[in-house]
Amino acid sequence: VERIQGKADSADKGGYRHFMLKEIFEQPAVVKNTLQGRLGSDHILEQSFGNGASDILDKVQSVQIVACGTSYHAGMVAKYWIEGIAGIPCRVEVASEFRYRKFVVSPGTLLVTISQSGETADTLAALRLAKELDYCATLTVCNVAQSSLVRESDLALMTEAGPEIGVASTKAFTTQLTALLILTVALGRRYAIDKVKEAAIVSALHSLPGTLATALELDDEICGIAETFADKHHALFLGRGIQWPIAMEGALKLKEISYIHAESYPAGELKHGPLALVDDDMPVVAVAPNDELLEKLKSNLEEVQARGGQLYVFADKQAGFKNESGLTVIPVPHSEEIVAPILYTLPLQLLSYHVAVFKGTDVDQPRNLAKSVTVE
Amino acid sequence: VERIQGKADSADKGGYRHFMLKEIFEQPAVVKNTLQGRLGSDHILEQSFGNGASDILDKVQSVQIVACGTSYHAGMVAKYWIEGIAGIPCRVEVASEFRYRKFVVSPGTLLVTISQSGETADTLAALRLAKELDYCATLTVCNVAQSSLVRESDLALMTEAGPEIGVASTKAFTTQLTALLILTVALGRRYAIDKVKEAAIVSALHSLPGTLATALELDDEICGIAETFADKHHALFLGRGIQWPIAMEGALKLKEISYIHAESYPAGELKHGPLALVDDDMPVVAVAPNDELLEKLKSNLEEVQARGGQLYVFADKQAGFKNESGLTVIPVPHSEEIVAPILYTLPLQLLSYHVAVFKGTDVDQPRNLAKSVTVE
Repeated sequence: VERIQGKADSADKGGYRHFMLKEIFEQPAVVKNTLQGRLGSDHILEQSFGNGASDILDKVQSVQIVACGTSYHAGMVAKYWIEGIAGIPCRVEVASEFRYRKFVVSPGTLLVTISQSGETADTLAALRLAKELDYCATLTVCNVAQSSLVRESDLALMTEAGPEIGVASTKAFTTQLTALLILTVALGRRYAIDKVKEAAIVSALHSLPGTLATALELDDEICGIAETFADKHHALFLGRGIQWPIAMEGALKLKEISYIHAESYPAGELKHGPLALVDDDMPVVAVAPNDELLEKLKSNLEEVQARGGQLYVFADKQAGFKNESGLTVIPVPHSEEIVAPILYTLPLQLLSYHVAVFKGTDVDQPRNLAKSVTVE
Repeated sequence: VERIQGKADSADKGGYRHFMLKEIFEQPAVVKNTLQGRLGSDHILEQSFGNGASDILDKVQSVQIVACGTSYHAGMVAKYWIEGIAGIPCRVEVASEFRYRKFVVSPGTLLVTISQSGETADTLAALRLAKELDYCATLTVCNVAQSSLVRESDLALMTEAGPEIGVASTKAFTTQLTALLILTVALGRRYAIDKVKEAAIVSALHSLPGTLATALELDDEICGIAETFADKHHALFLGRGIQWPIAMEGALKLKEISYIHAESYPAGELKHGPLALVDDDMPVVAVAPNDELLEKLKSNLEEVQARGGQLYVFADKQAGFKNESGLTVIPVPHSEEIVAPILYTLPLQLLSYHVAVFKGTDVDQPRNLAKSVTVE
């Protein structure tokens, strides 16, 4: 079932040093492809989800997302969107936990699976299990049209990332987020999203490919700071709210390809334990868009600085962070808040990539990992 | 509001080298105190939860748990109990995330806060926020009777841990779990727990103090393996199902007092990234009670061994693990499956304690941390 793998040898790096870097730079284009046919001028075209999509979406009262690894992080972002913007209860769970656990299915719950390959063993098993339970319907966010998840789900929201060769997922993740934001609007127009709000989100989605392209201009600057990570053995990644799963994904990338033990925390949990780890040998990376949690995050970061931690803050240009001793600020272009999780993913991908290159690891084929986890 | 802190200087270590070790060894006694007055011969005495408890519990259709740090891990264990045993939907969230997030409150939702001190700033703020929302009632699991959480909640399920001096929580956690299992039964007798099941759980609770005492007999054996961790900088803690949050708590203890970067994963997620970190310098700790997930966990652990990882497995004597090259088995006394999460906590606490002593850190007052986090 390793379809993607088969294409790996013949695929072209297109002048990039690694497939991963090529795939990072493809993101504006593949996000645009994922939006194709799904957006009107001021509304979502939900018929593009598949036959009978509107009737199925009419029945949805809550959402259960199931996924693994990077796709799980995409699901965690979607939870903040679906509850916070669409006004619909949403739960998200790691597939290997979900499938072996007893739980209660609320009436009208849509099961959403997320997987690049569509063959992830635990996620597929979760879908098959769910079909025996009282879910109102199943939908998959997937990158491979002929995959088992697509064939066996009621609806499929395809990501148009194209073949992803690098084992560490990049463009699959951001196209998943794009699809999940479209899903959020489709669900939410039946609940908390009115026409004005829908038009605003659709406008932000129309601008998204261009916004992502501006983030890629940070490449040189990020390469410049990556060298300071290359001799480190640990890192902490902090975010709050919807940026917490983005910090989780940033930490996972660094783990996967540079073998640096990076861990993520919601910034408010720092004082409840992980602050004990912080010293001048443990860089702390934070994502700080200019949203309502910024002041809270700043106070968390001051604690890190007070303990000698080296801080790297990816912050909105308008967020008011300034370089100082122990604090390096990487200014990220300003964006609509709704798409900020997608935007902030890119500089974190670039950071992991350049750190791995400095360390000399096998970026596209990191040790111990396979592209698609098709066994339990 | 640092009431506990005031008692620290005058408290007595009772012949133990550190407060933390004293508090670990107090657990059979304080768990017994927490059970006091709450158990009949074959049923839970729910009137012990406070005035009007039965009327309030009658209204509960779902549960939202909010907590920080170690108390959050107790909440995660409770989620597996409340959904898996009581048959009631349960969500659990870090307080600093919960209070700043938009979400939907289902009808008949009980808000449960968990905090040793009852003054944890984010948890208290979450309770105050919840009072303005549509929760049917509030209940706190707390160790300080005069605390803000107890005063401001409809019901209080007191843990009887006594003053906890060590900054790294031990006996507060296991008494929280004990109280939460009692709460699970009280809620579940209205749903999926029949009289036979209730009697079986009550019987396991009656035996729990004795069961915990047998786990403490592992102290010397655990001290013997702790030295091999003292020069390590990383560790992975693995569990599946209800033992995943126990692995999380085990990792947090090691972080807090030994400054070793320990991280926890549900074992099924290993292949989705963290396996890249595993080499012979990163010990992997697993909790493996003899439950239905054991065979799955064994296969996850074989992957660790195949990559040269040093494995330490805390396993039921009947689980069939044997010492071999790269695999150290610490046999844990057999127990009823329902109380296994409480039992397996103790050897992990002992491991962290002895590692910290070998490293020479300040066990009772680890750097950067305060006992009660009474500011945001």
